[in-house]
Amino acid sequence: MAAQLDFFLSYGSTYTYLAVMRLPGLAKAAGVEVVWRPFSLADLLAEAGFADGPFAPFPNKLAYMWRDLERRARKYGLPFTKRPNYPWPYKEAGLIAILAQKEGWVVPFSQQVYRAAFERGEVLGAPESLQAAIQSAGQEPARVMDVIAGAEIAGDWAANTEAAREHKIFGVPSFVVAGELFWGDDRIEDALDWATAKTTGEGR
Amino acid sequence: MAAQLDFFLSYGSTYTYLAVMRLPGLAKAAGVEVVWRPFSLADLLAEAGFADGPFAPFPNKLAYMWRDLERRARKYGLPFTKRPNYPWPYKEAGLIAILAQKEGWVVPFSQQVYRAAFERGEVLGAPESLQAAIQSAGQEPARVMDVIAGAEIAGDWAANTEAAREHKIFGVPSFVVAGELFWGDDRIEDALDWATAKTTGEGR
Repeated sequence: MAAQLDFFLSYGSTYTYLAVMRLPGLAKAAGVEVVWRPFSLADLLAEAGFADGPFAPFPNKLAYMWRDLERRARKYGLPFTKRPNYPWPYKEAGLIAILAQKEGWVVPFSQQVYRAAFERGEVLGAPESLQAAIQSAGQEPARVMDVIAGAEIAGDWAANTEAAREHKIFGVPSFVVAGELFWGDDRIEDALDWATAKTTGEGR
Repeated sequence: MAAQLDFFLSYGSTYTYLAVMRLPGLAKAAGVEVVWRPFSLADLLAEAGFADGPFAPFPNKLAYMWRDLERRARKYGLPFTKRPNYPWPYKEAGLIAILAQKEGWVVPFSQQVYRAAFERGEVLGAPESLQAAIQSAGQEPARVMDVIAGAEIAGDWAANTEAAREHKIFGVPSFVVAGELFWGDDRIEDALDWATAKTTGEGR
């Protein structure tokens, strides 16, 4: 049985761009199965007293985030044509991704969503952008939008949010391997090493 | 002329442990000159509305920080025998380090300060711990304590704090290379690549 990594994400996150683009290839090379678990980070932030998002109280950190993200994207050879308008609508992208995870098209859908924003400057999560991403993943938008409006996807969304709360997640992207939490795109490699037990006993 | 990296730090910081232990060797290998610039991060945090420190509003993040720090220390082969009591007194260590930077013993002093805490569980910044660190760097504690009580060191402390403010630093460890800011021990390698211009034009 392949080792498993739970990928907790929100399509409202900037740094999640890097993880969405990098994790699938790195996980495949490591032989680790990734379960994408979109959830409501906004709910957890609101519970922590940060209803306006993680950067609102820190203007210097916000400015740094954009610069750091741009440097990192270039380092990894990822498109960074412009800074998309932020914040953007994102809950619907998460609901679609829950369905896509079940049906096996979450990677092309998610990469398309982020590429549209960072490569072409589209509003991430805008209806026409999501529709194009659904189509690029080989799916029919009308069917998808119908399914995600139902109770099953809403239940999965709530369950993922509760799981994130139990894992004490405070930001995204986050990765959980056998109960161990890793936060940030720059911890992907560590999380995969943990999953494949390259991390020695002492490191645990 | 060697490339220069300004290392902005506070001895009140946990993650700065990793940078204090790793940066000297990595910078030497890269041929980059490091200028250690201890400053009052507390002043900048207070100005940003976080007088109780960066983790006070985020209990989950605080818990994660300790676990992440422990994993990282082990990954790098650094001692992590126990979590020192936190927060700890630290301003005096910064003042001593300003003198040590001028006189050329800032690396052994600083590494000893952090080792005492993370390897042996001493209170970081406690008078007897600082005295032992001064002696281990080949200096006479009475002379050092006399000099750091003077106006020159106080002026340098204020100047470093003002420089950190101008660079829009919001946390430590931070590294500034030719005006470019890098935050976090996990960005040391990127900062050194920037200093040695390994980062290509496009990356800038």
